[in-house]
Amino acid sequence: MFETAELGRTLSKKEYDAQEPLLRTQLLEVQEDLKQASFPVIIIIGGVDGAGKSETINLLHEWMDARYLQTHAFGPPTDEERERPQAWRFWRVLPPRGRIGIFFGSWYTRPIIDCVYGVTEIADLDSALAQINAFEKTLTDDGALIIKFWFHLSKQAQQKRLRGLVKNSSTRWRVTKTDWKHFKLYDKFRGVSERALRTTSTGTSPWIIIEGTDERYRSITVGNHILNLISKRLAENNATRIAIAAPPRAQEDPYTLLDTLDLSESLTDAKYKKLLEKYQGRLNLLSREAKERRRSAILLFEGWDAAGKGGIIRRATAAMDARDYQVIPIAAPTDEERAHHYLWRFWRHIPRAGRVTIFDRTWYGRVLVERVEGFATESEWQRAYSEIVDFEQQLREHGILLLKFWVHIDMDEQLRRFEARQLTPYKHYKITPEDLRNREKWHDYELAANEMLARTWTEFAPWHLIEANDKKFARIKALKIICAGFEENLQNLRAPARD
Amino acid sequence: MFETAELGRTLSKKEYDAQEPLLRTQLLEVQEDLKQASFPVIIIIGGVDGAGKSETINLLHEWMDARYLQTHAFGPPTDEERERPQAWRFWRVLPPRGRIGIFFGSWYTRPIIDCVYGVTEIADLDSALAQINAFEKTLTDDGALIIKFWFHLSKQAQQKRLRGLVKNSSTRWRVTKTDWKHFKLYDKFRGVSERALRTTSTGTSPWIIIEGTDERYRSITVGNHILNLISKRLAENNATRIAIAAPPRAQEDPYTLLDTLDLSESLTDAKYKKLLEKYQGRLNLLSREAKERRRSAILLFEGWDAAGKGGIIRRATAAMDARDYQVIPIAAPTDEERAHHYLWRFWRHIPRAGRVTIFDRTWYGRVLVERVEGFATESEWQRAYSEIVDFEQQLREHGILLLKFWVHIDMDEQLRRFEARQLTPYKHYKITPEDLRNREKWHDYELAANEMLARTWTEFAPWHLIEANDKKFARIKALKIICAGFEENLQNLRAPARD
Repeated sequence: MFETAELGRTLSKKEYDAQEPLLRTQLLEVQEDLKQASFPVIIIIGGVDGAGKSETINLLHEWMDARYLQTHAFGPPTDEERERPQAWRFWRVLPPRGRIGIFFGSWYTRPIIDCVYGVTEIADLDSALAQINAFEKTLTDDGALIIKFWFHLSKQAQQKRLRGLVKNSSTRWRVTKTDWKHFKLYDKFRGVSERALRTTSTGTSPWIIIEGTDERYRSITVGNHILNLISKRLAENNATRIAIAAPPRAQEDPYTLLDTLDLSESLTDAKYKKLLEKYQGRLNLLSREAKERRRSAILLFEGWDAAGKGGIIRRATAAMDARDYQVIPIAAPTDEERAHHYLWRFWRHIPRAGRVTIFDRTWYGRVLVERVEGFATESEWQRAYSEIVDFEQQLREHGILLLKFWVHIDMDEQLRRFEARQLTPYKHYKITPEDLRNREKWHDYELAANEMLARTWTEFAPWHLIEANDKKFARIKALKIICAGFEENLQNLRAPARD
Repeated sequence: MFETAELGRTLSKKEYDAQEPLLRTQLLEVQEDLKQASFPVIIIIGGVDGAGKSETINLLHEWMDARYLQTHAFGPPTDEERERPQAWRFWRVLPPRGRIGIFFGSWYTRPIIDCVYGVTEIADLDSALAQINAFEKTLTDDGALIIKFWFHLSKQAQQKRLRGLVKNSSTRWRVTKTDWKHFKLYDKFRGVSERALRTTSTGTSPWIIIEGTDERYRSITVGNHILNLISKRLAENNATRIAIAAPPRAQEDPYTLLDTLDLSESLTDAKYKKLLEKYQGRLNLLSREAKERRRSAILLFEGWDAAGKGGIIRRATAAMDARDYQVIPIAAPTDEERAHHYLWRFWRHIPRAGRVTIFDRTWYGRVLVERVEGFATESEWQRAYSEIVDFEQQLREHGILLLKFWVHIDMDEQLRRFEARQLTPYKHYKITPEDLRNREKWHDYELAANEMLARTWTEFAPWHLIEANDKKFARIKALKIICAGFEENLQNLRAPARD
């Protein structure tokens, strides 16, 4: 794989001087066009030490408009980053649509280095690479252009180069002990890197291997690749979009999982009061213990309008300390949120260690309201299932408790509640004409909910269905599940809480 | 001061039960109205340990809609917080307009505790309190409603309460060693707190002292205060706004500071090339040293359109490592930025330790374009001068290098550049009809710039005026100043870099 990047390619000063001015002009122009475009550009710079990675990045900043270009270098994670899943530090700095982000060191660095140093096995590497593929697919499916450069040097060339840098007093600082340590592991590094590149050279975001020996050659080559790939994408986006055929859909099953729920379940006032006290008391102790042991939790609530999500949330938060949780209501995204992948706005709210985030409506909006109302295209919501499962898997692998609730009522009960709300002074604002319109689409929502349950019900993040025609029954059932979830997550010390 | 909160006020269960349901309804209603309002509500909860602070916060979450209420508790700062000025951790979580943020522990905690424990002197406390007053004024001037509660207990009552909590196994966990340590310092704490409250009880955000002994009394009292203060503010905002009389203005001085600049200054190509190499080399070394020594820098550029700000920035960044700086172009704010104080969007970009942020246009837009174009009211831009000086002082006190540049050309030179841009293919996008319109307001901008220079030129953050009719001269002068600034900031180890 790397053999093609050991050919000793060079570019003469004359050729460079002839090409450089035009390339700069074109890069600036393409960057200007990009500002109006609806996709972000992510440039990943990886490769062998001393092969000109940082020089190239600096040159790109010189050539392009640095105001719309942001380079992120990833050193050791900060404590705020360590407290979240690994991908969080990358999600928080992903460029918005129309901008370019350069990632120096990226999601590839740690899996490769860990494997080279023997911290992890090849199987761990493969598993990490599969996760990377899923992550990049999530971004490219959303339109992101990912350009991946791997800077290569032969073993001999690298040694020569490192020695050269050390000789010159103005460049010596750039060669660290780590560089020499890496060099000693050259062959292992080469093997592991090749495996990584092979596995992650997908059709949509293949690796481009850059021969790093000649500065002029690599600079012009990288610049041209960036220019061509962005130009090509801009041209595609301007061309009439061909509708992507949606994947074939299974026939709708008229009998659904939600139909199996017994909505007549109920509790007497006396029993409710007693159980409420019991489970709130238990949750209070459990949430304090989780705080101390730095175990985070995410509780998420989906369900029909007026199903009583808010009421359940209030009973749960009443048992917790207001300093330790936040409730995030999901409504229309802000413009910063709209300029990113739809999951970005949820990554923003991943709790710190020991804290709880409660989502009142969630990322499942993509496959519920956005699907039914046509805000997302069929291919968008179809692929959302696996994006969501991936996302939730990352949360669970970080040791975060994730509890997903579907709060269920039937159509008659919803109508009763809408009518009651109109009579309650401080609740009447909760009824909008939209709520009534949504009732007409009950069946569509039901189908969407059933498909959602089927496709996102995983072993590590199952759904909890709450029969909620009786509010009291619903609250107690949910509280009981929350308590059991906290208990299990605290007991299960085998859960890999990486940092 | 606290004597009035040692009267043994109580509320009977009967009275409480009579008042509570209505209060809750009204709080929900007022919260609903607030969502549409153009101001945020900041509730600060401070006071004696064991006086019911956390119970009250939890109760407020129970009473109100927790989805639009966010409580922030401030423990030890994270490393990301330590690397910025102290106020950064508060700015990053200020509620947007229409929302309520509860601050449990706040900008008061550290100055008071440090003084009680003898870490700092009374003079330091006074200085911190003056800064707090300026900070709160900045927020209230922008419309924020700040409600400050101080929960008080007499010494005797506190002792009794702590003992009571310890006796009960379900509350014992809440009494920590720190609580007893604080208790031993009760008298000192009382004295220091009184001084703090007295100094910061301003007309716009006075402290409300709450007698903490009786739970029912303090709950209803706090709830009523919140209800009344938000209602009152909502009513005021709905009433016809009375125009606030602008402060009297000094007569305009036709002879301005900018007139004193010698715009004929220039450099030959040869000299430019030589000096550019010299200062870029120096800046490269200096910025590396600053990175190592974790000294941050903020460079900001204001000046006429086409004055060459971008060109200077490019010459500076060419000497730095792209991993260590970011260039922030200031254009229209995003809607999240618009929902906060205008300084919030700049606080977001305060660099981490050792990094550099370069602003291409800045917070000075408030007193330049927003003033001239009428986007800010006279009282808004008038008070911006001191808000900005305060902000910059905080940056400097944290040891951040702050260099402010005004890049100056005359009207003829600007026209020449506009015309030249229209002929350069990759620059023509830089000319908009707005640019030409702005030329008509040259004189207004000149006056605004001169007043800005006069009022924000401080000892700790002076302006640097760059004669820029000759681009080469301008770039070298700016680079020289940047080098000198880095040098001075590195040498000056006495600069108080607090953490």
